[in-house]
Amino acid sequence: MLATFGGREDGGVDRVAGSPADLASRVWLADRITAAGLHAWTDEVGNVFGRQPGSRGPWLLTGSHTDTVPVGGRLDGAYGAIAAVEVLRTLHEAGHPAAAAVETVGFWDEEGVLPTSNGGLVGSGTLVESGHIDEITGFVELHVEQGPRLESRRSTLAAVEGIVGIDRYLVVVRGQANHAGTTPMNVRADAGRAVAKIAAHLWETANEVDESMVVNVGAMQLYPGAPNVVPGEAHLTVEFRAESELSLLRAVERTRALVRRIGTEQGCSVEVSQLSHKPVVRFEDGYVDRIHEVCVRHDPTAARLMSYAGHDASALSSRVPTGMIFVPSTAGISHSPVEQTPKDDLILGAQVLLDLLVELESSRSHAVPVHSEAR
Amino acid sequence: MLATFGGREDGGVDRVAGSPADLASRVWLADRITAAGLHAWTDEVGNVFGRQPGSRGPWLLTGSHTDTVPVGGRLDGAYGAIAAVEVLRTLHEAGHPAAAAVETVGFWDEEGVLPTSNGGLVGSGTLVESGHIDEITGFVELHVEQGPRLESRRSTLAAVEGIVGIDRYLVVVRGQANHAGTTPMNVRADAGRAVAKIAAHLWETANEVDESMVVNVGAMQLYPGAPNVVPGEAHLTVEFRAESELSLLRAVERTRALVRRIGTEQGCSVEVSQLSHKPVVRFEDGYVDRIHEVCVRHDPTAARLMSYAGHDASALSSRVPTGMIFVPSTAGISHSPVEQTPKDDLILGAQVLLDLLVELESSRSHAVPVHSEAR
Repeated sequence: MLATFGGREDGGVDRVAGSPADLASRVWLADRITAAGLHAWTDEVGNVFGRQPGSRGPWLLTGSHTDTVPVGGRLDGAYGAIAAVEVLRTLHEAGHPAAAAVETVGFWDEEGVLPTSNGGLVGSGTLVESGHIDEITGFVELHVEQGPRLESRRSTLAAVEGIVGIDRYLVVVRGQANHAGTTPMNVRADAGRAVAKIAAHLWETANEVDESMVVNVGAMQLYPGAPNVVPGEAHLTVEFRAESELSLLRAVERTRALVRRIGTEQGCSVEVSQLSHKPVVRFEDGYVDRIHEVCVRHDPTAARLMSYAGHDASALSSRVPTGMIFVPSTAGISHSPVEQTPKDDLILGAQVLLDLLVELESSRSHAVPVHSEAR
Repeated sequence: MLATFGGREDGGVDRVAGSPADLASRVWLADRITAAGLHAWTDEVGNVFGRQPGSRGPWLLTGSHTDTVPVGGRLDGAYGAIAAVEVLRTLHEAGHPAAAAVETVGFWDEEGVLPTSNGGLVGSGTLVESGHIDEITGFVELHVEQGPRLESRRSTLAAVEGIVGIDRYLVVVRGQANHAGTTPMNVRADAGRAVAKIAAHLWETANEVDESMVVNVGAMQLYPGAPNVVPGEAHLTVEFRAESELSLLRAVERTRALVRRIGTEQGCSVEVSQLSHKPVVRFEDGYVDRIHEVCVRHDPTAARLMSYAGHDASALSSRVPTGMIFVPSTAGISHSPVEQTPKDDLILGAQVLLDLLVELESSRSHAVPVHSEAR
């Protein structure tokens, strides 16, 4: 139903934060919370919360984001935001005591598509800076994997251990723009040839450092960009994602050496500058273990793995015990109209979330709050 | 003086065809012809011609173009156009009989910078389609080399044997755009990685075919071009220049094989399409020999070489016996404000042009026209 807001004929969704479709979808989410007999409210940036009327907190928060990338899929974010409301509705309708201790959230602007979004996590980032975070005992996010690992190991569930660190660099190579006919090959300082050689080697560079890390050259530009001019300057963006900070450091160290070597070989000067650094996030061990236990009960092959994509859980983990549950993405495809997950897996994920919330609440109400020292 | 039209503070010239500076420069050239006591006239596209008043033809044509690339140099084109007028003025003032059989030209729009120029040679291309071409017995163009070959062999003059053929191709690689975090390296179909590998290998590909040929990758684009998206499509332009058609054919054959191999290796589909083909031009042997003889008289080290840049002489050679004289370009630099040639070499080039015109005219007036069968 949420997918009708910004819905596309090809099955995809355009619901970029701040768009009319995004605004309408958040009104719809609030209406759905109200229709479930729950209390809906929004904070300063428009995160949509739901809780039992009269409940006084503190709350165990669950949910995800409602915005999408342009030409995105139906499940990324929306699945966890809607499943949260469905789980709380179920607890509320069953008169379960845990219902009073659970709050749902639909975060605004996780994707960070807008130029003003500064990389995303805007809604969740606002929450962790607000007073309401002190009323939150923990956060659980249910999400599609967006990769093929669960599908390839034929698992339907995973407990997420954390989120990889992400480093972005800009490589600038400066040679000498020149006539592409009259300049003999052996006297050229071809910045384009240098970046091509750099880009061609970066997979091996990353793989030598850490077989589990990933690297991407998403953009390359040659200047001036004419067929008959030897490129005098060339730019390349490279992004590394790794499960450890040390791998990120080693990767850039090796990249600098590679870039220097190829620059010298091609007679070009080089510059490598960091565009951004997102540190590795490790979720609360106790949460990861508990989530994995619940998952294994439903699927003995349930995995433990790191997320290679960023999530609102990253922002929340800086303030409260945090965990995530993944369900598979068919063929590993996400941020695409063909993004999908088998219906049974979607239902199973919501069931795991329900069981988990009940368990976490029952252990919290009978004991010292889990990992409160981690705040 | 011509360099004051479109002149830049850095010593360079902006005199793109059709600009106010270009128009003013052609009025200046016509005034200079008139001031020399010669008759100036222009054709339908604004080529500026000069001849002795009352001369009836046929004429041996000499000159070059007066337009420049943006941020170009003072000599490319202008040198040959002005030297032509100075040489005819000298013959005219000396009352030499050859003066009646020489015509000068300042061609319009050789560079082809305007979107409507269709690759340049607009002025010379118009002339060879006009009736006036039937009144022309031959064409000699004096030009700066625009490369470093004369300087590196310490020669001050060259007889140009022809102009290399130029082939341009567009390589399109299509893979699968994907999330740069969640997509494992071994399942990516990374179009950007494929074009980088192709570009990195093209020098070797060309060199294996023909050590004298040159290749340039002037542009590469990755789509969608975001740091966190695996490129789903990538484009690359490649230009080959070679002294023989066979080398051009072999180069593209090997390029197609290279592109197919790398495409398959990276799980991408590939497409190589020809953007343009300019055939190899061979100047009239008799002209090349005669020019070389005259050059050697002034500089025993005078060279014979192919031009790796296009020239108006290319258009003229399709209809009349044609030759070119090169003088050195300091450090091989052209299409740049720092383009220059030692003053003595500029004077020497004009002297060679003068001697050559007198010799060609005297042999023509005493014998059957040289190579008239080549028309």
